Amino acid sequence: MSTSTEEPGTPDRAGRRPTIKAVAAAAGVSTAAVSQAFNDKGRLSSTTRRRILDTALELGWSPSAPAAALRSARTRTLALVVRRPTDVLGADPHFSELITGIEGELAPRGYGLLLHLVAGAQEENVLYERLAAEGRVDGAVLTDARAVDPRPALLARLGLPAVLLGAPDRAAAVPSVGLGQQGAGVEEVVAHLLELGHRRIAYVAGPEELQHTRLRHGAFDAALRAAGVRPVAVLHTDFSEVSAVAATVALLDTADRPTAIVYANDSMAVCGMGAAQRAGLRVPRDLSVVGYDNLPLGRWLHPRLTTVDQQVQRVGAAAARVLLARCGEDVEAERLDDRPRLVVRESTGPAPRRPAS
Amino acid sequence: MSTSTEEPGTPDRAGRRPTIKAVAAAAGVSTAAVSQAFNDKGRLSSTTRRRILDTALELGWSPSAPAAALRSARTRTLALVVRRPTDVLGADPHFSELITGIEGELAPRGYGLLLHLVAGAQEENVLYERLAAEGRVDGAVLTDARAVDPRPALLARLGLPAVLLGAPDRAAAVPSVGLGQQGAGVEEVVAHLLELGHRRIAYVAGPEELQHTRLRHGAFDAALRAAGVRPVAVLHTDFSEVSAVAATVALLDTADRPTAIVYANDSMAVCGMGAAQRAGLRVPRDLSVVGYDNLPLGRWLHPRLTTVDQQVQRVGAAAARVLLARCGEDVEAERLDDRPRLVVRESTGPAPRRPAS
Repeated sequence: MSTSTEEPGTPDRAGRRPTIKAVAAAAGVSTAAVSQAFNDKGRLSSTTRRRILDTALELGWSPSAPAAALRSARTRTLALVVRRPTDVLGADPHFSELITGIEGELAPRGYGLLLHLVAGAQEENVLYERLAAEGRVDGAVLTDARAVDPRPALLARLGLPAVLLGAPDRAAAVPSVGLGQQGAGVEEVVAHLLELGHRRIAYVAGPEELQHTRLRHGAFDAALRAAGVRPVAVLHTDFSEVSAVAATVALLDTADRPTAIVYANDSMAVCGMGAAQRAGLRVPRDLSVVGYDNLPLGRWLHPRLTTVDQQVQRVGAAAARVLLARCGEDVEAERLDDRPRLVVRESTGPAPRRPAS
Repeated sequence: MSTSTEEPGTPDRAGRRPTIKAVAAAAGVSTAAVSQAFNDKGRLSSTTRRRILDTALELGWSPSAPAAALRSARTRTLALVVRRPTDVLGADPHFSELITGIEGELAPRGYGLLLHLVAGAQEENVLYERLAAEGRVDGAVLTDARAVDPRPALLARLGLPAVLLGAPDRAAAVPSVGLGQQGAGVEEVVAHLLELGHRRIAYVAGPEELQHTRLRHGAFDAALRAAGVRPVAVLHTDFSEVSAVAATVALLDTADRPTAIVYANDSMAVCGMGAAQRAGLRVPRDLSVVGYDNLPLGRWLHPRLTTVDQQVQRVGAAAARVLLARCGEDVEAERLDDRPRLVVRESTGPAPRRPAS
């Protein structure tokens, strides 16, 4: 395979094509040094590298994309494909947290994150095929592990390194990264509320088809059942603020309304708390509210939000490290031996004797 | 230029290299149809396209990256380089909103957004050079217009289509997209507060070097001055929640404390409101609070947040459309003839006669 960066047959945008030799001559270096400057490899001083890049810019020369691709199979790009309506992406800071965690590992290594939003499973799969076929990325972070998930097998077939965000699963075709004992956080929430005397507890969950929705819902039911308590209600939502408010209003509008509501994420909990306060209820005196995620905002609200810390940033960082290692980078994969933990703040308190009416 | 997708000299990962002809024969189509299936071009039915892709997967054939690059210079990828500490990215939903707006235009067209986080200006510039040199992206969205901004000239030199998020500026080397009359929102805020009787108004601003910080600060000062009022204080922050809380606590701890605080974004306003409530102040009875951004969350808080709608999603979408058009896509650039507008909700009210002490 040739490593030449010259492609006489490929004109630049203006129709002319200066040569790498001209750049090398003008900068007073070898053509290999020009290649190195663009690859950010070799032992060039930063001064020399700058001079070469400036000279190339001046002459209007750049290595063509095909030459660059031939020269290095590495794209220094990882894919993150999110299967959510675009408006929920904006509403739910969960993804900001995840991206923050991933970027914390990528940025110092000069990697970028290729973000794609897709509407459905079929579109997501076709996208991985295209990204693999065109050599656009070195690997992919798979989000929202499904109960039945064809993606790990697909990416293994495509030969694209991948990591799945979700509960550790030895059977999966790609490594999965997530906190163990996913149900542990919800169990702690239920124990905390029971200890505060709550017996009428409702759960505002996420979409039913997501793995973590099922895990947490199962843990919620089991923990209550073990205490001989039946949940007031479990309502599924699409994670949007509107549906969080609607679920809260519906729950509070019943005769036997809950004294505590547990939400599947902090954004929904904040909206639910606002809806309860607007209905004249004091939090936590009349209603206890629990979130899930431990987003930064929850610490500053009044009252401060009780929530489950699932360390989204840390999971994102760990996933990025696993993937970087699989892409040949010299990083050690971090072992996540932690589990989700309850963070008790101010939005939970003793159950009221009787609900305020 | 050849459009062949066959590269006999380039072995696949397993060392073998099935040919495009074998795929075409097995799928019962022409080699051109195989190319079209991978390019997502031509007039293939989705059934035929799936069959071809499945056959290719089965045989382990994929177009090599160099061939794909030769075939089409389009990467269907746009870059978004963010110069923020990674932790602020997670804290500030502004970027989720922006990305949501951009993705709303990109996703339906099969485009991805390449997100890079950089620490400084030099790193950002080198990154654009690399992305251009390696042909990784078709264009770039430039965020956080600086008072002195070398990026438009750099990207023009690199021949990389770009769009700058910021106030329209005819002199810039690349088109800029943003709402006009950036100061209009702040002017409306000041007029609203003055009408409510406030005379002690403080401003919690963003980092001083950002263009919009200077524009809004200037508008804030000018609007107050026109009414013969002096600002109580203008405090600069790094947009983080911690500094928003610190600024609020400092402002409320003075003898001549403000009766209204205007924040440069909604996240900081939410934190500030929490800090004020925690200090025993009622919002808006003792203190009026105004945000900036009109994030979804503000609508659901109690009290609902008065804010300035600067249509972040719509600006992101408009920027994406300008860039897609410059990348040769058939989209019409939307004209943003709107300006930021005050949205009055519940967190602002009449000024207290005397501050509660």
